[in-house]
Amino acid sequence: MSQVFIAPSILSADFSRLGQEVAEVESGGADWLHVDVMDGHFVPNLTFGPLVMEAIAPLTQLPLDVHLMIERPEQYIPAFAAAGAHVITVHAEACVHLHRVLHLIKEQGAKAGVAINPATPVSAIREVLEDVDLVLVMTVNPGFGGQAFIPATLRKIRELDELRAQYGYNYRIEVDGGIAAPTAPLVVEAGADVLVAGNAVFGRSDRRAAMEEIRTSLGRA
Amino acid sequence: MSQVFIAPSILSADFSRLGQEVAEVESGGADWLHVDVMDGHFVPNLTFGPLVMEAIAPLTQLPLDVHLMIERPEQYIPAFAAAGAHVITVHAEACVHLHRVLHLIKEQGAKAGVAINPATPVSAIREVLEDVDLVLVMTVNPGFGGQAFIPATLRKIRELDELRAQYGYNYRIEVDGGIAAPTAPLVVEAGADVLVAGNAVFGRSDRRAAMEEIRTSLGRA
Amino acid sequence: MSQVFIAPSILSADFSRLGQEVAEVESGGADWLHVDVMDGHFVPNLTFGPLVMEAIAPLTQLPLDVHLMIERPEQYIPAFAAAGAHVITVHAEACVHLHRVLHLIKEQGAKAGVAINPATPVSAIREVLEDVDLVLVMTVNPGFGGQAFIPATLRKIRELDELRAQYGYNYRIEVDGGIAAPTAPLVVEAGADVLVAGNAVFGRSDRRAAMEEIRTSLGRA
Amino acid sequence: MSQVFIAPSILSADFSRLGQEVAEVESGGADWLHVDVMDGHFVPNLTFGPLVMEAIAPLTQLPLDVHLMIERPEQYIPAFAAAGAHVITVHAEACVHLHRVLHLIKEQGAKAGVAINPATPVSAIREVLEDVDLVLVMTVNPGFGGQAFIPATLRKIRELDELRAQYGYNYRIEVDGGIAAPTAPLVVEAGADVLVAGNAVFGRSDRRAAMEEIRTSLGRA
Amino acid sequence: MSQVFIAPSILSADFSRLGQEVAEVESGGADWLHVDVMDGHFVPNLTFGPLVMEAIAPLTQLPLDVHLMIERPEQYIPAFAAAGAHVITVHAEACVHLHRVLHLIKEQGAKAGVAINPATPVSAIREVLEDVDLVLVMTVNPGFGGQAFIPATLRKIRELDELRAQYGYNYRIEVDGGIAAPTAPLVVEAGADVLVAGNAVFGRSDRRAAMEEIRTSLGRA
Amino acid sequence: MSQVFIAPSILSADFSRLGQEVAEVESGGADWLHVDVMDGHFVPNLTFGPLVMEAIAPLTQLPLDVHLMIERPEQYIPAFAAAGAHVITVHAEACVHLHRVLHLIKEQGAKAGVAINPATPVSAIREVLEDVDLVLVMTVNPGFGGQAFIPATLRKIRELDELRAQYGYNYRIEVDGGIAAPTAPLVVEAGADVLVAGNAVFGRSDRRAAMEEIRTSLGRA
Repeated sequence: MSQVFIAPSILSADFSRLGQEVAEVESGGADWLHVDVMDGHFVPNLTFGPLVMEAIAPLTQLPLDVHLMIERPEQYIPAFAAAGAHVITVHAEACVHLHRVLHLIKEQGAKAGVAINPATPVSAIREVLEDVDLVLVMTVNPGFGGQAFIPATLRKIRELDELRAQYGYNYRIEVDGGIAAPTAPLVVEAGADVLVAGNAVFGRSDRRAAMEEIRTSLGRA
Repeated sequence: MSQVFIAPSILSADFSRLGQEVAEVESGGADWLHVDVMDGHFVPNLTFGPLVMEAIAPLTQLPLDVHLMIERPEQYIPAFAAAGAHVITVHAEACVHLHRVLHLIKEQGAKAGVAINPATPVSAIREVLEDVDLVLVMTVNPGFGGQAFIPATLRKIRELDELRAQYGYNYRIEVDGGIAAPTAPLVVEAGADVLVAGNAVFGRSDRRAAMEEIRTSLGRA
Repeated sequence: MSQVFIAPSILSADFSRLGQEVAEVESGGADWLHVDVMDGHFVPNLTFGPLVMEAIAPLTQLPLDVHLMIERPEQYIPAFAAAGAHVITVHAEACVHLHRVLHLIKEQGAKAGVAINPATPVSAIREVLEDVDLVLVMTVNPGFGGQAFIPATLRKIRELDELRAQYGYNYRIEVDGGIAAPTAPLVVEAGADVLVAGNAVFGRSDRRAAMEEIRTSLGRA
Repeated sequence: MSQVFIAPSILSADFSRLGQEVAEVESGGADWLHVDVMDGHFVPNLTFGPLVMEAIAPLTQLPLDVHLMIERPEQYIPAFAAAGAHVITVHAEACVHLHRVLHLIKEQGAKAGVAINPATPVSAIREVLEDVDLVLVMTVNPGFGGQAFIPATLRKIRELDELRAQYGYNYRIEVDGGIAAPTAPLVVEAGADVLVAGNAVFGRSDRRAAMEEIRTSLGRA
Repeated sequence: MSQVFIAPSILSADFSRLGQEVAEVESGGADWLHVDVMDGHFVPNLTFGPLVMEAIAPLTQLPLDVHLMIERPEQYIPAFAAAGAHVITVHAEACVHLHRVLHLIKEQGAKAGVAINPATPVSAIREVLEDVDLVLVMTVNPGFGGQAFIPATLRKIRELDELRAQYGYNYRIEVDGGIAAPTAPLVVEAGADVLVAGNAVFGRSDRRAAMEEIRTSLGRA
Repeated sequence: MSQVFIAPSILSADFSRLGQEVAEVESGGADWLHVDVMDGHFVPNLTFGPLVMEAIAPLTQLPLDVHLMIERPEQYIPAFAAAGAHVITVHAEACVHLHRVLHLIKEQGAKAGVAINPATPVSAIREVLEDVDLVLVMTVNPGFGGQAFIPATLRKIRELDELRAQYGYNYRIEVDGGIAAPTAPLVVEAGADVLVAGNAVFGRSDRRAAMEEIRTSLGRA
């Protein structure tokens, strides 16, 4: 098993003290920081835009992992890249010109990711797998509350893992949605490298312990 | 001159320490707190949604003055009302069923406001003036950076002030955009009651002094 | 007072026996039949399209009064005209090229109407008043349930009545929403000629009595 | 061959006497009743919405098979479920969050179906096959008039039939478009279980005979 | 009567020899060249974009008068300004942020115009009259073929002429649609300064004579 | 190797003398003429619509190869067919009812093509391969400037070539984007039959030589 990154999502943090929240997960052992941008159009929730990135980027050394759940993401890619995004991920379902958008991300100096919803097959992104640095397999439907991990998505994680082995692709496989100690071993065993964790980290008072718990669960995998 | 409220906009605050920022303007003498919600569709900027309101509402006694610069605002009105909004303002340009949306705000327990862009005439909202608690006259174009106060909007403030006097309407007149010590007396003299201040307050290290300066300018009016 | 027409809306009829419902209001004294077409986009309700018109048109002598609460109404005007519409009314809020759409209706052989939502001022349709055969003043918000008659719309009815007197325009003034015995005299006194009645007619078992009641109320005006 | 259901589509019925039409096909041996909802946006035709369902549901024991050819179907799913839908089918092409919409249907108490247009491959719905109770293979393009059965769709029916056998999925396979005695054996032989019939049933004065004819054709398969 | 400009619209020219066509109207006495950009979305016709401007700008000394009948015109303003537009006109009906768009045109170095459709009242652009260099009163519906001059638009021309006299505004009044010798005197008498002529110029083999005829007609006014 | 057609794209021609440009490539040995229609919505560029086709069609014997990079292409298919298009190609990404649109093209008397963006897999058009006369594999992203040929698209060309051999399909395979002497042999070797060339032909003063160069490069394949 290669290295697995844990990326707490600030969507679950306390927005009145975001700087402290970020510091806590950084010191607690987070590998990346996941930034969930929603526009209320691509998904039925509106979270935040570049201003939050710009506020936290100077305060952390963690790679910022921006997940754009928005329509016409090309409009916001320059702002997030300028604010210091390590990777910017767009949804295949949101991009008619997906290849172009991915290369725009790279031109702006960030790594390029592509995300797929639970119902979207791997075949929909087959032609860009050699262009991306990250594939985000949504393990719940983005932008809806109260959902549990969808086990059927494991099949797509495995398929992506096999494709990168077979063709020598270099993307990481990220998962987002319902990831916690009980589900983390399943996705990692299937091939996931980056685990987004929301309430599983920020919903706990001891964030270090929360992340340790996820890591320990992987050891049992 | 009736009482004039100063409503600092959290859009200009430091988002890594929003709770402290709010506390500073509250203790510094703010009357309301202005909450600028943009979706990247109605305006070319994406700020934040209900989660920020939910984070700061428990921390302040200030009335929360929510300005929805979003398409289909009816989808978010219940969330902002539930989070404790004092007034929720929607844009006339965003609402085909404006009368319905305003009454939805009231049904949800908040006061109802209507906003108009610089190019939108008062005649566009004439039929709902008796339904609203607040009219927001945009004194810059919402969602675009780096704009100066547009003096021609003073004519609309005066027109709204005259209409409420003539017909006994009860709405407050709010202004937003480029409001600071040099412009505040102009809008207040024209009839404005609520002054949104962004950088003029949060862009200064001493927020109390910043607000005092605006109030002092009004005394010279 | 000129002649007042009562136009029961089939939206409130029993759709399992529409032919009989139409026959009952026709024999009961209806003057027109109102046909409420909603697409779930312009308004948040989806009712029916041309197929219902085509089913009832051969069964009645009543003028069919089609109210299109749909986006891009030009796409459906030919179908409704071919099905025998007496008048086709489109919403000012739905038409960027309103003048063109109204003349398309006339070219297709029907009379042309324009409708305005409660928040829309008469000034928005001022330039087409000489082109239309009917102005429909919505007295509730179209497509939303459970609303009461909005008294403020009386001002617009009066304004339209004065304009046609002053300029010699020929349009009828129609009202739709919350019209029943208590409100009918108010709108007729203000200048309305055509009263759409939904539940006030179809919600009663004796439709003749229901319409008589409305007519009687006008006598008291 | 497993049991085959015939589902007459009320789109082809006489809308002035819908209750009687439904009674005739029910007594004539229909298995399901197909309800074609079109909004004039997803397809270029506007048929009807929940009000028709609400009118006929109390009058029949037949399972109501609702086919939503509309954008944003999630907005209407609760209404159709409340009106008694047995199964609600949405189009894959209309749903960015298809997995979520299918589970919303189930949460509302109905069975969940997914439909694909003639040009849409089975791969587009591969990830939700274990979530659905029904797959509707459109055998003509929905919402356009005057089309003949498209034989190339047989390949997709076979593919779906093989997938359910191979993986133990439980969905029924429904076909809609140009189904009559000459085509019914072809689709059933390929794996279809539910046959939507429009003019082939309602276009005949003797509906029982029309359905018998289809059933008889299957015997020859 | 102040000077009247004639602006032949290249929409009516022969697109296989545009350079020669432009040269002919330039030598024939045209004052401006009108450039009709349509996108098939704001209007139901698709004409051309910046590439045509870029081809003809180097070949003529005539001021290029660009009329954008497109949605989101802000996306194309920089390209047309860079290609040498003298004035760029956007439609009020196409701009939620009209004031901003007009100032963007100016920032890009062109003069700013605002256009209104036949059904749009002057009140809709009242707040930007001091910001514009040109008001274009459409005297037919843009983007539709085969229409005659709409006489009711004269009222708006007069209203705009009176407003500029009363307030000292500096805009020119342009008219477009059905302008030829019989109608030119009417619009000029009402206050128009710039006459767009399509077929009236390019539909004639002798373009000089065609423009002379229009000018002569004005002498008779 | 079967015959290879060279189709210069007039998008790269001089629009002030289009007739002469077309004559030059026709006499210089072009096989087809490629007509790039963009609406500024499906792609971020607006080129031209039917009027350009109508101007050049009478002047050339070359088959006109129309590539519609527009939303709702069905609205413009009749106009391009009437103007003499040999083949009309629509984008799979732009058509919810792709099968219907392709047959509309045929009904209008032209040959039907389907185009796919670089990120779109062949599986997305698998179900219409037997319906089309041409498949256009975009070898750059349409509507964006300054892009180089994307080698990964060769895989899709090969896949399409194999499918037509295996199933006996009759479509030609066209490529568009970055095609010149260095890339032409690659795409032809992979299976392409029609090569769109823009700057590689019109960007050279000697268009015959430019096309000869491409043909010569193929000989080296």
